[in-house]
Amino acid sequence: MPLGRLTPPKGTRDFDAVQVFRRRYILDILQRTYQKYGFLPLETPALEHLDTLMGKYGQEGDQLLYKVLNSGDFLADVELNSHTSASVLPHIASKGLRYDLTVPLMRYVATNSSQIAFPFRRYQIQPVWRADRPQKGRYREFWQCDIDVVGTESLLCEAEIISLIHEVLHRLKLSQFSIHINHRGVLRGLATMLGAADQETALCVALDKLDKVGKANVLTELRNKGLSAVALEQLDFIFALPTAAEARWEVLTNRLQDIPVTTAALQDLRTIHDQVQAMGLGTAKMLLDPTLARGLSYYTGTVLEVKLQDSTWGSIGGGGRYDHLTDVFGLPNVSGVGFSFGLDRLYATLESLALFPAGIEQTTQVMLAPLDDASTPWALKVLATLRTQDICAILYPASARLKKQLQYADRCRIPFVGVIGEEECAAQTIALKDMAAGTQQPYTLDQLVDKLS
Amino acid sequence: MPLGRLTPPKGTRDFDAVQVFRRRYILDILQRTYQKYGFLPLETPALEHLDTLMGKYGQEGDQLLYKVLNSGDFLADVELNSHTSASVLPHIASKGLRYDLTVPLMRYVATNSSQIAFPFRRYQIQPVWRADRPQKGRYREFWQCDIDVVGTESLLCEAEIISLIHEVLHRLKLSQFSIHINHRGVLRGLATMLGAADQETALCVALDKLDKVGKANVLTELRNKGLSAVALEQLDFIFALPTAAEARWEVLTNRLQDIPVTTAALQDLRTIHDQVQAMGLGTAKMLLDPTLARGLSYYTGTVLEVKLQDSTWGSIGGGGRYDHLTDVFGLPNVSGVGFSFGLDRLYATLESLALFPAGIEQTTQVMLAPLDDASTPWALKVLATLRTQDICAILYPASARLKKQLQYADRCRIPFVGVIGEEECAAQTIALKDMAAGTQQPYTLDQLVDKLS
Repeated sequence: MPLGRLTPPKGTRDFDAVQVFRRRYILDILQRTYQKYGFLPLETPALEHLDTLMGKYGQEGDQLLYKVLNSGDFLADVELNSHTSASVLPHIASKGLRYDLTVPLMRYVATNSSQIAFPFRRYQIQPVWRADRPQKGRYREFWQCDIDVVGTESLLCEAEIISLIHEVLHRLKLSQFSIHINHRGVLRGLATMLGAADQETALCVALDKLDKVGKANVLTELRNKGLSAVALEQLDFIFALPTAAEARWEVLTNRLQDIPVTTAALQDLRTIHDQVQAMGLGTAKMLLDPTLARGLSYYTGTVLEVKLQDSTWGSIGGGGRYDHLTDVFGLPNVSGVGFSFGLDRLYATLESLALFPAGIEQTTQVMLAPLDDASTPWALKVLATLRTQDICAILYPASARLKKQLQYADRCRIPFVGVIGEEECAAQTIALKDMAAGTQQPYTLDQLVDKLS
Repeated sequence: MPLGRLTPPKGTRDFDAVQVFRRRYILDILQRTYQKYGFLPLETPALEHLDTLMGKYGQEGDQLLYKVLNSGDFLADVELNSHTSASVLPHIASKGLRYDLTVPLMRYVATNSSQIAFPFRRYQIQPVWRADRPQKGRYREFWQCDIDVVGTESLLCEAEIISLIHEVLHRLKLSQFSIHINHRGVLRGLATMLGAADQETALCVALDKLDKVGKANVLTELRNKGLSAVALEQLDFIFALPTAAEARWEVLTNRLQDIPVTTAALQDLRTIHDQVQAMGLGTAKMLLDPTLARGLSYYTGTVLEVKLQDSTWGSIGGGGRYDHLTDVFGLPNVSGVGFSFGLDRLYATLESLALFPAGIEQTTQVMLAPLDDASTPWALKVLATLRTQDICAILYPASARLKKQLQYADRCRIPFVGVIGEEECAAQTIALKDMAAGTQQPYTLDQLVDKLS
């Protein structure tokens, strides 16, 4: 047998019990809130046909997709005369690992469109895989927590998503955040204003890096794309907007109101703003941000991103509206809007702010410590009775020295140890040791059940 | 953009909301019971180094492992002069998908042995992938639900696992099952008795197929392996044991007691039997079964398997004791015992026996149906208020005809629809329609909250 490697692959992680319980704490809040907002769960397989995945995430995405080798003699039908990786790939790999949850959703919607009641509200919380360069806070296996409403153009969906983001973050006790919101129409308008209507994508790509590379580098990139100094000067105001929401609004409206596509986009954003207010949320956390582009090319309307103040993590979630995502699966004219929280970012944030509540980690309440083999039958009787009463209990599975058993209970952070020796067997009692207090006193089985229930 | 395929890959499945809720019903029972028995969760990544996986599941396992192509120009360093799949594989794929949960556990235990308090009780519920031929009840992506106690030879662990199996199946309302139990020592003893001590593995492999191919074919296979007719006649009694537990015990003890290795194995099984009785479980569901072999070669002691009566599914779970699984990861002399329920088998069983309780599927309690755009602000106020009270509510995201909205609510099985039009806005009320009764009456917001809470 070949020796096995001891570490999980780079960019992937094992999660121990504490980490799993903490992740579940977040997932539970997400799930409950998603369901309260009428989203229902969907799960799709980790493996998809490569046909389904390729070409959906841009050229970089195609590179970062994990491709799975066909099983058996995968080289059997391969012409190796022209053996570049690109030419061989389609012959040796027909499946890949899920890269996000949106494309599988679109496949699912297209396949099951006759059974689905539209607007389709679904949530999906599953890992995705990307062969990205691992770095702080970025993994090759990571969890997305998506909600989408598919099959309606109603902006009420955007307003509901903003309301949901507030509730999730409130429940997680994360109050220092802002929801940056923009509209692709605004970006289109900006490009038009700069006399570079054909450069909308370049503008999006450049602006998308603003947080990472800073304004100067964004401007350099745009200059290299051919934008004039005069145009770039015109763009300058978006980097120096007032922080107050209404003042921002006014500046943007004044600068962009004469461009038709932008007028409609600003109207949409105003509608969302009013609906959010009608839900009693105010505007405090919403921030109109014309520099927000969101890298993914499939967005066509609203885009939004949640950023934490004073955090090194950048965004903890993002989303937007897309009008053509099911087209490629043969179902045209389906508009949808979605949002995704990144579980790993939320986890890192809660950890760094010490926001995981005490007591979310399930622990064993009591360990029974038999002092000799003859004590086992009574210990087993006690164990079975405790479990019948739904008390989380274990039996140290050998009659080791008491000291060793207590050390084990201590390492497992078990608060009570029920010592059982000759005397306890005879009296049908349990000598219960309180590990924190260091005290010990005899209990009958009934008393023990009462004590631990 | 290439067209996307509409189906998930063969042997994998999408799970819709009803299926997810039903799966969660099972998983919740497993998780709670596992935790009550003192097992704590562990999760490991889907991707492992191929080094970690290869050679651990036998030659067939190596074939069935999903291998993941290295990213980038994977052919760059490949000598294509000798281009068989086997020789190329190590150069183009260094990772694979998790094939079971036991090998990742062993890697984890070996890596973290200094931090772990032994005996280590962990559970792990995650999907695994095998490039097997898909067939009824067998998938390429399926879920294992493992518990293991690692780092003790105590047979109390076996007894506890048997107790846990009873509780899980009792909670799932599956009462018609039996826990087949055997010991590799019994199989070794049988081989010795037949004068074929060196054929123990062949005996296990042949017996493992008994359920599928029947006794005659098992005997044919053994004959082909070189066992004599006389030997096979000696083996005959294991196919015709009494059904009563104690009678079975007696026959086996009589036939095998003089073979030393078997004596110890039978003694172990007797100890487990007595401990299970001490927990008050009786013997009804435990069945000593000398034909039970369990395919996996890594078992060294007890083996067990849970079978449902009157079911076409064969076993719904199995496990056993292994003494050397961490050896290959550099940590020798660690004995462990584990058991795994198959989620997909449990699901299929509960479905075929109609054992999913009513009400496990979360549904939206109320849908608000605005009759015109002017009704939206009041509808949003109602929506936000209901959600503040943790009532699961949605708003139909457009002012469609009421009939269309009611049809949607009906398809989504939403029991109440709150109609909101001009009159309701003026009166600050909601016309609540009971979808089952067909009745409709006005409610104030407070009354509505009371009604739905």
